[in-house]
Amino acid sequence: MAAAQNQSYWVSIEADVETYLKKAIPIRSPESVFEPMHHLTFAAPRTTAPALCVAACELVGGDRSRAMAAASAVHLMHAAAYIHEHLPLTDRPRPKPTVHHKYNPNIELLTGDGIIPFGLELLARSMDLAQNNQDKILRVIIEITRATGSQGVVDGQYQELGIDEIGSTDYEIVEYVSKKKEGELHACGAACGAILGGGDEEEIEKLRNFGLYAGMIRGLLGKNNSGIMEDKIEKLKALALKELESFQGKRTGLIASLVEPSLRAAQK
Amino acid sequence: MAAAQNQSYWVSIEADVETYLKKAIPIRSPESVFEPMHHLTFAAPRTTAPALCVAACELVGGDRSRAMAAASAVHLMHAAAYIHEHLPLTDRPRPKPTVHHKYNPNIELLTGDGIIPFGLELLARSMDLAQNNQDKILRVIIEITRATGSQGVVDGQYQELGIDEIGSTDYEIVEYVSKKKEGELHACGAACGAILGGGDEEEIEKLRNFGLYAGMIRGLLGKNNSGIMEDKIEKLKALALKELESFQGKRTGLIASLVEPSLRAAQK
Repeated sequence: MAAAQNQSYWVSIEADVETYLKKAIPIRSPESVFEPMHHLTFAAPRTTAPALCVAACELVGGDRSRAMAAASAVHLMHAAAYIHEHLPLTDRPRPKPTVHHKYNPNIELLTGDGIIPFGLELLARSMDLAQNNQDKILRVIIEITRATGSQGVVDGQYQELGIDEIGSTDYEIVEYVSKKKEGELHACGAACGAILGGGDEEEIEKLRNFGLYAGMIRGLLGKNNSGIMEDKIEKLKALALKELESFQGKRTGLIASLVEPSLRAAQK
Repeated sequence: MAAAQNQSYWVSIEADVETYLKKAIPIRSPESVFEPMHHLTFAAPRTTAPALCVAACELVGGDRSRAMAAASAVHLMHAAAYIHEHLPLTDRPRPKPTVHHKYNPNIELLTGDGIIPFGLELLARSMDLAQNNQDKILRVIIEITRATGSQGVVDGQYQELGIDEIGSTDYEIVEYVSKKKEGELHACGAACGAILGGGDEEEIEKLRNFGLYAGMIRGLLGKNNSGIMEDKIEKLKALALKELESFQGKRTGLIASLVEPSLRAAQK
């Protein structure tokens, strides 16, 4: 019963983010640019980082609508990274698992390059003089650019190239990549949601940590894993739940469910 | 004499932007990420769009320092676009003129992906509560993300693919590409400088137009051109200078020199 409620909570958030994104990226002129942008935005696999952004906003008492632009930007940054990871570059001897390429590589490269600034533009445009939220929006832009840039996701992608090349299963590298890619994306999503929802600094940091652990769990589950991973995942889950101890109310259970095995299985 | 003064004005701005960028991108940890980022940022050819950003700020009476972060962000967005344009993708039958690739394609791809958010992070961090410039910074973020994204530079790059493929010298396409790439980058640089320097809406729009024409001239000069181009360039120059008519003071001559042939020859 609780599992079903949790499940429907996440499903409702994801539906709202998708609706927001569909409105934000209409297929408009120039169509040669916006059609691939629209298609590839939704073709990228979902991560739970945008949904966590919305859930964190609600957990600290903010209305869901406040986090929509940031959650959408988090998805867009992830989608751009995903598209570029799957480009057929001439020096990729062991390509990523084959994905269906609807467009040629030049178009996919440029679409990723267009999606990154578009996500941040969407976020900057969500400033609202009536809410006087400019400082929050700027803070969230810094959070997202840091987490998805050279000290976050891009660093993880660099290190992952090493794994691809040497076929490493060195646990430390795998953990580092999970931390930088899925971990920092979720940490950033949670922190942004808490900032926009009006959380205090302590709440923001606790939710950031929760996001980091929850993201790392997702990342490790996506890798070929072994017994060592299972242990590590249980430890990360305990650390994640500890960060939520000081939060009250029914929403705490909802957000905690992100690290529960039942939900992990149900979501990608 | 005037030509030498003009020249030294632009040189002094470019030196200041370079100093600012060098401080902003130290080679720090992780070095595997920041060393290529630092190298490729300065390996990309200069455009005059960042310098125009600073000059526009000064023309409307703002201190040069106010425009440094935005000018740097404009250069970074340009550098990322340049790096990605020269990636060896598997479907590029006619590669761009050979450039020296110090890094392998995966690294260059990721470096571009890191530079885009870094430039916007730099800009967002330049918010200054003492100056209460948050609204201006957000406005400038919107300007830069729009101009460098799917409705600006990226659109130009899409259309340029068409030229590369069919070897087109169709003047209309060449002009469109120059407008979207160099034109919008310079228009955005000029508008951002005017916004940050405290210009009024009329000044911002006039400088935006000046930048559009000045950038298009640069773009057309970079193409294989013919007699038609020369005529067009003269027309663009006249349009550009017309936008400056209502500005007063010696700085008007300095900024106007961007479209003079003597300076065009001296600068890339």
